[in-house]
Amino acid sequence: MSVYQATVSAPVNIACIKYWGKRDTKLILPTNSSLSVTLDQDHLRSTTTSRADPGFDSDRLWLNGKEEIIAPGGRMATCIAEMKRLRREVEEKNSSEPKLSTFGVHISSRNNFPTAAGLASSASGFAALVSSLAALYALPANPSELSLIARQGSGSACRSLFGGYVAWQEGTAADGSDSLAIEIAPREHWPDMHALICVVSDDKKGTSSTSGMQRTVETSPLLQHRIKHVVPERMKTIQKAILERDFDTFARVTMQDSNQFHAVALDTDPPIFYMNDVSRSIIAIVTEYNRLAVANGGKLKAAYTYDAGPNAVIYAPKENIKEIVELIVSYFPQAEPFKDPFALFGTAGVGEGKLVEGFNPAVAKKFPVGSVKGLIHTRVGDGPRKLGEAETLLGPDGSPKFLA
Amino acid sequence: MSVYQATVSAPVNIACIKYWGKRDTKLILPTNSSLSVTLDQDHLRSTTTSRADPGFDSDRLWLNGKEEIIAPGGRMATCIAEMKRLRREVEEKNSSEPKLSTFGVHISSRNNFPTAAGLASSASGFAALVSSLAALYALPANPSELSLIARQGSGSACRSLFGGYVAWQEGTAADGSDSLAIEIAPREHWPDMHALICVVSDDKKGTSSTSGMQRTVETSPLLQHRIKHVVPERMKTIQKAILERDFDTFARVTMQDSNQFHAVALDTDPPIFYMNDVSRSIIAIVTEYNRLAVANGGKLKAAYTYDAGPNAVIYAPKENIKEIVELIVSYFPQAEPFKDPFALFGTAGVGEGKLVEGFNPAVAKKFPVGSVKGLIHTRVGDGPRKLGEAETLLGPDGSPKFLA
Repeated sequence: MSVYQATVSAPVNIACIKYWGKRDTKLILPTNSSLSVTLDQDHLRSTTTSRADPGFDSDRLWLNGKEEIIAPGGRMATCIAEMKRLRREVEEKNSSEPKLSTFGVHISSRNNFPTAAGLASSASGFAALVSSLAALYALPANPSELSLIARQGSGSACRSLFGGYVAWQEGTAADGSDSLAIEIAPREHWPDMHALICVVSDDKKGTSSTSGMQRTVETSPLLQHRIKHVVPERMKTIQKAILERDFDTFARVTMQDSNQFHAVALDTDPPIFYMNDVSRSIIAIVTEYNRLAVANGGKLKAAYTYDAGPNAVIYAPKENIKEIVELIVSYFPQAEPFKDPFALFGTAGVGEGKLVEGFNPAVAKKFPVGSVKGLIHTRVGDGPRKLGEAETLLGPDGSPKFLA
Repeated sequence: MSVYQATVSAPVNIACIKYWGKRDTKLILPTNSSLSVTLDQDHLRSTTTSRADPGFDSDRLWLNGKEEIIAPGGRMATCIAEMKRLRREVEEKNSSEPKLSTFGVHISSRNNFPTAAGLASSASGFAALVSSLAALYALPANPSELSLIARQGSGSACRSLFGGYVAWQEGTAADGSDSLAIEIAPREHWPDMHALICVVSDDKKGTSSTSGMQRTVETSPLLQHRIKHVVPERMKTIQKAILERDFDTFARVTMQDSNQFHAVALDTDPPIFYMNDVSRSIIAIVTEYNRLAVANGGKLKAAYTYDAGPNAVIYAPKENIKEIVELIVSYFPQAEPFKDPFALFGTAGVGEGKLVEGFNPAVAKKFPVGSVKGLIHTRVGDGPRKLGEAETLLGPDGSPKFLA
């Protein structure tokens, strides 16, 4: 008897134009378009195996080896039901296709980065879920079509269906049929976009993005202006910057939009804060690094961006990452040596870091070890990858192979 | 020979609707109207003596005993010149008046609060300067007329010409002749408005408000929306709340506007941060205190507001201040005992503070001693006070009596 299964990995994406606010909370339709860079799965990924079997009497899902309840009507149930509907269309068109849509499905997923890192895993997770079911069901759907379904799992997940530079078009249709992801440019168009993730400690759990963004929609007078008058222009500007590989403009818009997202969070009642003093200091360091570059007749060399948490993601051309790591380590001493996936440093490593010449050291104070818990160096990456049978996360009995 | 001199004290004011942005930087004309509460001079004040003497060969000014250069064309020079112009009008109308406008003037000013407290002294300082010169020159000008001149020293100084609840009307005239302060209500209308100032330590000097606000005008897309569409409505709402002694509405609008001011500062390029993790935690504490009050069927009990720095000012009816001090001290242990000007606490003092029943302690972590350096309890106060000869800050030789 055949085993019907597929294993796919999907990437994390980090937005440059931020998604914050839904116009439809059930269908997850956003109040504005957004744009992100997909990060390299060599470093950060969710991997998911989906298996359909007539012996499975229900749909079940394990995340990092721990079973999650698929709540009826919930986001996971919606995604699975939508994928089965597409499979049914395939089966109806070709009666020789096995009736996988009628089988129970077991899904096992894991992230290669710790939850404690505070990196949003819902984007890569739902992208991997939808992609693995699409592979299992041999659907003819393209990534944009699949993004419509991933979007209903987690809004930003739709952008993880593509590699490279990806826009989520807000769309106008009430049923959400035009609220989908499109590729602005593949990674190969601009492969020199690197990213340094600064994992920041936080004392307390912030407001969840799901509840936070709706409170902003309901109470921030500034959000409407952002939606109507600021984001449309920025979307055009940054897409052009990407097509022209214009890092200066890319960086400027990325930083402005990160700040504006946190500004409308602060304009919410009661206010929402995601950045802390460590986040602020990283902004001050990047700002000074850029000021110096411009003062020396150059252009912006780095761009920070912050999602709904204190972690910084710093985008920069590869050639600047060494200086940036040295700057960050100078202010935020690390307990562990820098993992150096691109071999920027020799065997001596980063050491205690150093400031670039002319850098004003007073822009931030030196923080204690652990304030920035870790640094992850990665770069723009590709879209979901179909993996071989050897990579399966389900054992022969249909239970997860990797337990928590 | 007569000694021509006058000594006046003037109060600090803390805005509820924030002034942030100039449409004319020379005349100091704001981009929006603002509104403040004048604080009690019994606790916080600037005191200024001005003396005119034919033997003074130039205008000189001492601040806390230290001479400040009166830069030609600068703000102090402008205020002094404007006051001399008004004096000249008096002299021209009545030729028996001594020609004080032709004399040099010596000005000695001091604040009764340390500069290190991080409280803006420019508002009380320029209000005291202008008021003392008005008294010296026996000008017939009313406080609104004087506010036109104090405004050219420091925008928010115009609001310190009145006690109680004060609006600074932005005006429309290009020459600034209608950009002045008016009294919305005197302190006696609503004397129960108390304030707790939490003096917060900061590691670094923030952006000056003068340069910061113009960077916001130049770069924040959200500021224009705030100016045109948000502030006018809030000015109406809070004035009505003051006239009706409606603390709930007063508190809501005050907190929203503080947050929106910091939101547009964050929307500035590069972003401006004035609040730090201590400020954020005080917001979280006040938010929880209010949440609990509302959950118990009541109304808002306290309102935080932050100017261009990390210090919190918490407005509340007197009856709530004891609970608020206890809450703040619980999270921010104090090195010094609480100075208790209204005798809220017995001889035992505040001790280690305590939480009100039902308060969720997890909204903030406990900070080390010194994070909040001090607490000042005050209340709504009166306008500039003319003081007696005994209070003079100038010695017989025209030099300051109180040296730094």
